[in-house]
Amino acid sequence: MSKSMNQQILLKSYPTGEPKASDFALVETVIPEPGEGEILNRTIYLSLDPYMRGRMSDRASYATPAALGKVMVGSTVSQVLKSNHPQFSVGEFVLGYDGWQAYGISQGETLRKLDPKQLPISYALGITGMPGMTAYFALLDIGKPKAGETVVVSAASGAVGAVVGQIAKIKGCRAVGIAGSDEKCDNVVQELGFDACINRKTQDLNSALKAACPNGIDVYVDHTAGAILEAVLQQINLGARIPLVGLISQYNAETPPPGPNLMPLLIKRALIKGFLVGDYQERHAEFIHDVSQWLQAGKLKYKEDVVKGLENAPTAFIGLLQGKNFGKLIVQVGDDPTKK
Amino acid sequence: MSKSMNQQILLKSYPTGEPKASDFALVETVIPEPGEGEILNRTIYLSLDPYMRGRMSDRASYATPAALGKVMVGSTVSQVLKSNHPQFSVGEFVLGYDGWQAYGISQGETLRKLDPKQLPISYALGITGMPGMTAYFALLDIGKPKAGETVVVSAASGAVGAVVGQIAKIKGCRAVGIAGSDEKCDNVVQELGFDACINRKTQDLNSALKAACPNGIDVYVDHTAGAILEAVLQQINLGARIPLVGLISQYNAETPPPGPNLMPLLIKRALIKGFLVGDYQERHAEFIHDVSQWLQAGKLKYKEDVVKGLENAPTAFIGLLQGKNFGKLIVQVGDDPTKK
Repeated sequence: MSKSMNQQILLKSYPTGEPKASDFALVETVIPEPGEGEILNRTIYLSLDPYMRGRMSDRASYATPAALGKVMVGSTVSQVLKSNHPQFSVGEFVLGYDGWQAYGISQGETLRKLDPKQLPISYALGITGMPGMTAYFALLDIGKPKAGETVVVSAASGAVGAVVGQIAKIKGCRAVGIAGSDEKCDNVVQELGFDACINRKTQDLNSALKAACPNGIDVYVDHTAGAILEAVLQQINLGARIPLVGLISQYNAETPPPGPNLMPLLIKRALIKGFLVGDYQERHAEFIHDVSQWLQAGKLKYKEDVVKGLENAPTAFIGLLQGKNFGKLIVQVGDDPTKK
Repeated sequence: MSKSMNQQILLKSYPTGEPKASDFALVETVIPEPGEGEILNRTIYLSLDPYMRGRMSDRASYATPAALGKVMVGSTVSQVLKSNHPQFSVGEFVLGYDGWQAYGISQGETLRKLDPKQLPISYALGITGMPGMTAYFALLDIGKPKAGETVVVSAASGAVGAVVGQIAKIKGCRAVGIAGSDEKCDNVVQELGFDACINRKTQDLNSALKAACPNGIDVYVDHTAGAILEAVLQQINLGARIPLVGLISQYNAETPPPGPNLMPLLIKRALIKGFLVGDYQERHAEFIHDVSQWLQAGKLKYKEDVVKGLENAPTAFIGLLQGKNFGKLIVQVGDDPTKK
């Protein structure tokens, strides 16, 4: 493809069940010119996140569906290439929402500048971005963990789960992960410092949870719903808190599957509460303050799974919903000059 | 049966599915003598409540199961017949937990005296007792209704539901009931002042809820789980609160049925929280203060469904789980001298 053209991945059709490569189309278009007050960004990194599956549907959700025939939406870290906006200069790095494409036009209002001297710019798509903020507020604001309590998190090696477990440890809790391979479990325990991790594919969830949580479960940050939530509910303690952050197990389902029997909530006077990070925008500063400090102090570790090339985004996204990523999944769309 | 003998209903077997008359046994025993510090009560009213089904099982619950071959447990309003306790005198009326029998022995610690001049003594089993307190705290402490919001309650003509809807009205909310007959719905709307009531047996829940709740649902006090909860979740507003008070729809189930799909909780950042009235014992005074005042001001109405004769308790209880009662179900076991 020509370097002077834009590459875009369009959403061709709303997937039925699992997304397929044929639901997407890679097209080449002219790089647009920024209008008055606008900025032209060159995409360096594109974030791939499970929530995107919800956008690829015209069923009611908390956000409007991604439009068919248009560039698929998504968060991006970019470099300013041309600017007609007084607050942005050529060469600056920004967090935006340009979607699955190599070049995007922004109005400036939604861009946030990134300082490559502080942290790697790609972190803004993960640990210091939406996933990190999800982990921080879901755990602390709904989960309210107290030292000595047990915190369980599913998708434990993922962008949110890895942060949940590490913050739980910082808060003096026992952190137990659930992940999809021995390799992920080993990483979560040995690198990230979780106390235990259960391989959901090879272990019996009920007995493994019982063994890993001898004092029961006080907080469960749920990404998956389905069988994992069902098993966790059997082990919750009195007054347990369950922030519901995602329902990965059913994102590809055509009709909503049933949920867990709720008797354990009654017996344990426990709560399940839906969580959306967008509700916490005005508390962004307190999140950045804590997480930056923990990163600099080495208390938080962060693993990225970098896929190279925009053309590989659909396959990488399909794999994400199958748990194939290992760490925060991002696509490197263009050259990262901060890594030279 | 002899007037000088005690009648007792024993739990013979843990029911499989719906309780049957044969799960109970009516026996005649000698009226016991109170020992040192003990009190002999004559039962006037026995309360029948859905939670009792949970006691008739050896499956894990928030309370120990009722023992087989022993008197079935339950709250009672009684008159003191003999007392070896300095704080209780013969002739006084008390709320206790003597179970399904005509005479019971108490230690005094768990008895609460009732003043027949203030309110009918039977009210202590209902609107000023456990069911009323359940309604009060489930609605106000978890539901947190604000004026103008819509409150929905299932089992709306029952001991808890009727109070939930009336307190919702007192708090300036729209109150919508769900009940099992047109007669119950008419009563709930015309006598208790609910804004609307849905007959769950003859109406389509989804469309009826949509019509009855044009501004969506902010609070749902759930007694039933199952299909009603599923339908309510389709209509909840952002930040809705769902105190889970009971799961009547599954009390007779041998294996726990699945629950509702939880996607609406995520989309609406809503919460479901298990509720048990026992957690609120230390706030009893604030409940009694408000409810007594509302009763005396005519703002709260209260309907009892009185079944006469202890021998009819099993049949009445079986009917309760089928929704056959109309108002708070109590069994009149003995003569009520306050009604002469």
